[in-house]
Amino acid sequence: MGRIIVEVMPKPEILDPQGKAVRGAFLRHGVDVFTDVRQGKRFQLSVKGAVTEGHLESARELAATSLSNPIIEDVVAVYAAEDER
Amino acid sequence: MGRIIVEVMPKPEILDPQGKAVRGAFLRHGVDVFTDVRQGKRFQLSVKGAVTEGHLESARELAATSLSNPIIEDVVAVYAAEDER
Repeated sequence: MGRIIVEVMPKPEILDPQGKAVRGAFLRHGVDVFTDVRQGKRFQLSVKGAVTEGHLESARELAATSLSNPIIEDVVAVYAAEDER
Repeated sequence: MGRIIVEVMPKPEILDPQGKAVRGAFLRHGVDVFTDVRQGKRFQLSVKGAVTEGHLESARELAATSLSNPIIEDVVAVYAAEDER
């Protein structure tokens, strides 16, 4: 079974309330080493057999149309993952 | 500015309703090449200057305690990212 990873993050200029909330939690835990925290999404798409270029092309297309909102998010990576687990 | 990426996914045995919903959307778009879809979280932690082992250690600790729920999620990666954007 092959896997494709798609990673989506909020655009840098977009306010990220979730990321701000996480950083606030860090500060309450006394951890102030991180100057910023942003939270995005990570998708794992499984395919039968090995990942092909066709699979990657479908994944790129879906990443741009279904897995992200192009107004506020960027697709930062689409790649075939070695079989993690 | 250095960046650390933390990636969190639902445990394989845990039902992933979001992933199921995404796969349903794919099928409605006529895309049935993906046998499974799972949705997790991707965090980007920024630090002043280059990423150090100390930063990574803090990130690993926070990943396990604040950025994931160990009962239903796995931390699948914690790594220093080249400066993406």
